[in-house]
Amino acid sequence: MIITVIGANSPSPRGAELAREVGRELAERGCAVACGGLGGVMEAVCQGAKSAGGTTIGILPGADPAEANAYVDLPILTDMGYARNVIVVKTGRAVIAVDGAYGTLSEIGHALADGIPVVGLETWELPEREELRARVAYAASPAEAVDMALAAAHERDRREQAARG
Amino acid sequence: MIITVIGANSPSPRGAELAREVGRELAERGCAVACGGLGGVMEAVCQGAKSAGGTTIGILPGADPAEANAYVDLPILTDMGYARNVIVVKTGRAVIAVDGAYGTLSEIGHALADGIPVVGLETWELPEREELRARVAYAASPAEAVDMALAAAHERDRREQAARG
Amino acid sequence: MIITVIGANSPSPRGAELAREVGRELAERGCAVACGGLGGVMEAVCQGAKSAGGTTIGILPGADPAEANAYVDLPILTDMGYARNVIVVKTGRAVIAVDGAYGTLSEIGHALADGIPVVGLETWELPEREELRARVAYAASPAEAVDMALAAAHERDRREQAARG
Amino acid sequence: MIITVIGANSPSPRGAELAREVGRELAERGCAVACGGLGGVMEAVCQGAKSAGGTTIGILPGADPAEANAYVDLPILTDMGYARNVIVVKTGRAVIAVDGAYGTLSEIGHALADGIPVVGLETWELPEREELRARVAYAASPAEAVDMALAAAHERDRREQAARG
Repeated sequence: MIITVIGANSPSPRGAELAREVGRELAERGCAVACGGLGGVMEAVCQGAKSAGGTTIGILPGADPAEANAYVDLPILTDMGYARNVIVVKTGRAVIAVDGAYGTLSEIGHALADGIPVVGLETWELPEREELRARVAYAASPAEAVDMALAAAHERDRREQAARG
Repeated sequence: MIITVIGANSPSPRGAELAREVGRELAERGCAVACGGLGGVMEAVCQGAKSAGGTTIGILPGADPAEANAYVDLPILTDMGYARNVIVVKTGRAVIAVDGAYGTLSEIGHALADGIPVVGLETWELPEREELRARVAYAASPAEAVDMALAAAHERDRREQAARG
Repeated sequence: MIITVIGANSPSPRGAELAREVGRELAERGCAVACGGLGGVMEAVCQGAKSAGGTTIGILPGADPAEANAYVDLPILTDMGYARNVIVVKTGRAVIAVDGAYGTLSEIGHALADGIPVVGLETWELPEREELRARVAYAASPAEAVDMALAAAHERDRREQAARG
Repeated sequence: MIITVIGANSPSPRGAELAREVGRELAERGCAVACGGLGGVMEAVCQGAKSAGGTTIGILPGADPAEANAYVDLPILTDMGYARNVIVVKTGRAVIAVDGAYGTLSEIGHALADGIPVVGLETWELPEREELRARVAYAASPAEAVDMALAAAHERDRREQAARG
């Protein structure tokens, strides 16, 4: 199962540490990690995943595989700039957001608009709006974020399989 | 000059009314309106623009021009789903966000990540984060939103022309 | 009705002349012209359309409206590189290909794969393959190309309206 | 190294057999295979790659991983329809085209326009045009196609590394 991790290019040291831990936990549970393939949170999550023998997919904004961070196994070269954010989000069965600036906000928006589960870890705290049913589910630790993302991804699989009949 | 207007498919009646007024104001000042081409705020802003003789561009998620609302002059058929949100945002020299749900949030994120000015009118109130310089500039009325968007768009033109040398 | 015109960035002088004439003919019949917005055939068709008072849409690969040729009324900023070719092709109710290199070949392929009528004017001559029903329809002059494109576009409108029920 | 294989959804039995063989050869030489993720040539190449223990990436037009053929390890969900063809082509260091209809033609066009090496195996025979330097290099067998693709990919790597300085 592929889980997407999103977050800033220039995270705080703590954001990078959280992302590394998320990557390690995902790999230990047999998940492949998809991300935007560049630095910061994207690099940290790939590094964490590789430290536990996982597989990492970097969905890059450009066309040059040399732009990928050193821990990306499979660079996907979109050459579509920010429009690749949509692919990053859709490729995971769930999304974990760590830290993050406006690019991350756009990805959270895409995911929630699309019914993709989003787990937040020290990331954007969106204002409560009762009329919107989809929500970021906030986790307190990398392990909890991964637990919540996997539970939501499995629930989504069940729901979509049921819809297929 | 093209100004982009974003907002929900299912706005409140007040949101739709604000969008119509924004469209009318933009057309009266000679701007073309770009939007996502569907219903709700997108339809209202096109209706307002047409009421004042403006030009409307609908950048659609699908491939069927019949999906465009009745006030779109020029349907752009992306057939790219939500990835078209990026094109909607980039096509305007500034963006006005009216009301809006998660799709709008993704567009605000894309715009701010990209240095495109965003004016908000009864839309998402994002938490203050000092480390992020780009901000939504909030307006109190449709006329003020259009004033602010045009000022920011002209400022952006000057800045980009200077950068071109 | 929007008709798309595709062709090379660096056409022969004759290719540019044909494109100008196609643009003029389209505008005289009340059609808006969509194209890739850059130079060569794209510039010539826009110039021709403007000479007859038409409307021109340039669907650009980048994010800078200054990349558009001088005859583009409405620059659509995709910032998606070559992926914008798909949008160029889909936005027209029919496609006229004039001259053209490999980018044009990709657009002809997209259009035929998608059931969009393609009229060719001194462009790629594809090998005959009986098992493929869609074909480029070759025209002998700009006026004939426009006649054929409009007939095919109207036929397509009728077919799609019938399919909608 | 990732090599892309393109070809028809509904190939001849021989086309599918060639694609299977190409997939097997690529996996035996340690390459990952990228493709459009659906049936026909895409399925056959993935099946061949998996028969030799390879890794397969399916870059899908939709958002549902269940659309991927049974031999795709890593489904990339673009939800961008045909625009995903561009990503399919760019993700490989070289492209092998087997059989193929108009979608494949669009991909050959994108690759050649972009300077990506294309090896053809019983696919589109494009008319010779002296003014266009990029060409499809035709191979006589799956093994030769893979040899040629790898040689071209390594040459491309050297050229791009030299350009980076």
